[in-house]
Amino acid sequence: MTIKDIARACGVGVSTVSRVLNNRPDVSDEVRRKVLEEVERQGYIPNNSARDLVKSQSDAIGVVARGIGNPFFSDLLKTISREIDRSGFNMVLRQIHSDEDEVKAGAILEREKKLRGLIFLGGRFDYTSAELSLIGVPYVCCSYNNRFGTLNAEDYAYVSIDDYQTAHRAVSELIGRGHRQIAALLPSCSDRSISQLRYKGYCAALADHDIEENSLIVEETGSFDMAAAYLSTLELLERSRDFTALFTVSDMMATAAIKALTDHGLRVPDDCSVIAIDGLNMSEYTIPTLTTMVQPAEEMGREAVGILLEMIEGSAPRHLQLEATLREGGSVRSI
Amino acid sequence: MTIKDIARACGVGVSTVSRVLNNRPDVSDEVRRKVLEEVERQGYIPNNSARDLVKSQSDAIGVVARGIGNPFFSDLLKTISREIDRSGFNMVLRQIHSDEDEVKAGAILEREKKLRGLIFLGGRFDYTSAELSLIGVPYVCCSYNNRFGTLNAEDYAYVSIDDYQTAHRAVSELIGRGHRQIAALLPSCSDRSISQLRYKGYCAALADHDIEENSLIVEETGSFDMAAAYLSTLELLERSRDFTALFTVSDMMATAAIKALTDHGLRVPDDCSVIAIDGLNMSEYTIPTLTTMVQPAEEMGREAVGILLEMIEGSAPRHLQLEATLREGGSVRSI
Repeated sequence: MTIKDIARACGVGVSTVSRVLNNRPDVSDEVRRKVLEEVERQGYIPNNSARDLVKSQSDAIGVVARGIGNPFFSDLLKTISREIDRSGFNMVLRQIHSDEDEVKAGAILEREKKLRGLIFLGGRFDYTSAELSLIGVPYVCCSYNNRFGTLNAEDYAYVSIDDYQTAHRAVSELIGRGHRQIAALLPSCSDRSISQLRYKGYCAALADHDIEENSLIVEETGSFDMAAAYLSTLELLERSRDFTALFTVSDMMATAAIKALTDHGLRVPDDCSVIAIDGLNMSEYTIPTLTTMVQPAEEMGREAVGILLEMIEGSAPRHLQLEATLREGGSVRSI
Repeated sequence: MTIKDIARACGVGVSTVSRVLNNRPDVSDEVRRKVLEEVERQGYIPNNSARDLVKSQSDAIGVVARGIGNPFFSDLLKTISREIDRSGFNMVLRQIHSDEDEVKAGAILEREKKLRGLIFLGGRFDYTSAELSLIGVPYVCCSYNNRFGTLNAEDYAYVSIDDYQTAHRAVSELIGRGHRQIAALLPSCSDRSISQLRYKGYCAALADHDIEENSLIVEETGSFDMAAAYLSTLELLERSRDFTALFTVSDMMATAAIKALTDHGLRVPDDCSVIAIDGLNMSEYTIPTLTTMVQPAEEMGREAVGILLEMIEGSAPRHLQLEATLREGGSVRSI
């Protein structure tokens, strides 16, 4: 069965069926319904792969998500997929592990699918122009930027929060509540990436409030893993009890840290306050509810798609920094 | 740049380069390293899409995962992806929303990628043979089966736990600890799917212990959503306080239920015990730690890939029922 059979059965042209299948706006609702019913009735399946090779351009926008199982990306993906659908393009998703190379994965996807544009969901902060020359279509870095890299500003787009500033605000919130001994739990202080930026924000907030640098209480976990965060919190407690609050760089790490503090006989927030960055839906269900800086996932996903669509139509890349907002839970108390 | 350039630079034949790129075993380690280094050096990217169309068969195994953001599937995907990698095949992942049709998505993927086989990660329990005739390659249903459907046993393979039996065991565990008033929190009692099977297991466990059916305390949430589970638990508490234990059909729902019970002033497990089914890693970090029936995700993923590989080589489909095991946490007490 071919697209011609569908067209004949509906009494319309092949190009009309094609427009319906590609979700284009220039078809009447009545014709669209008729075609889709016939497609359904005949069980017709478009052969996209063949089509993509024949056409010089597909209708596909690629999304490369780095980190299978990162709950923040799950939230973002829902918005991105909805927005791409609405635009009439098709989303092609490729998920890779956090130790894989998203640029290479994007380049492969671009060739396979003749993409019109690409969204990188999570990635390194230190791209060089040479590396990114592999990508021949407009792309947007979603939830991160090129802070440690050497891309020309006019060559790439991003939507992210200011990681440094968000960490600064989280730690300042603790200081504003009277805390001066504040420990930090993070994967690394020097990963040229998200964790280093948030570490710098933590340090700056302490310095701005005249808390001396030699009073830093920092525990590096090596990863964003919950098990590592749990063990590192216990190690931190072995080493030092001189803190009244804990700053962690992700909600999942904070959830594991609260568990470790509780298992160690400490009450949150009575004995130790905890604050994080992310604002996952599921951290509304921790006990106590997590106090966290919410990344605006909905807006971030919408803007990433919006900027990419502009670029596909010829506009210059834009850089968009979004504001994270404090969601007060029950894990921070004033002392 | 083409595969010929790589072959020339390495002093080997094109077919050798092809074998390396397809991750085939019949190449020496030394040659493999040399080719991969050259591929890396030249930044060569195989054009899989073109290759797949030219070849009559690709090296691709498709995975259709239904339910973006289901943490149980994230765990399973890690194993499945590793096992497919090890086998020398390439995994092609397509994630769809839980209201999309996995069979249609699988059929499209099969044509686009000329798949050798398919794994459905989550799906409906009531397939008909007519529907599944869309799929022309061996496939395995992973984490579910055809309990409410009409497929011929010899036409399909599955790996899953026994949902009925697992629910029966969870509820029997509560009864064994002295509970007789046991509430159930589940998406639906009649969805011809996982939730209905677990509901039947709950009913049967009560009946087996001479607990009368008119004492059932059931709350239908309409979905596996945490927000729905939270609100439904509060509604249940408005309606009835005559239960000492709560059986929920997923870890995430249990996490939300524990939160609702706590917010309502009840202590878990002192005032109400909670048991679930799933065994997610993250439910080791709830407070108290969730007591749950662990689905063997590692074994399930490994077996799903193993059975599919056998089928690709001509073996008949197999049906494999795995055992879920109790992971004792701190959310159930004896009364």
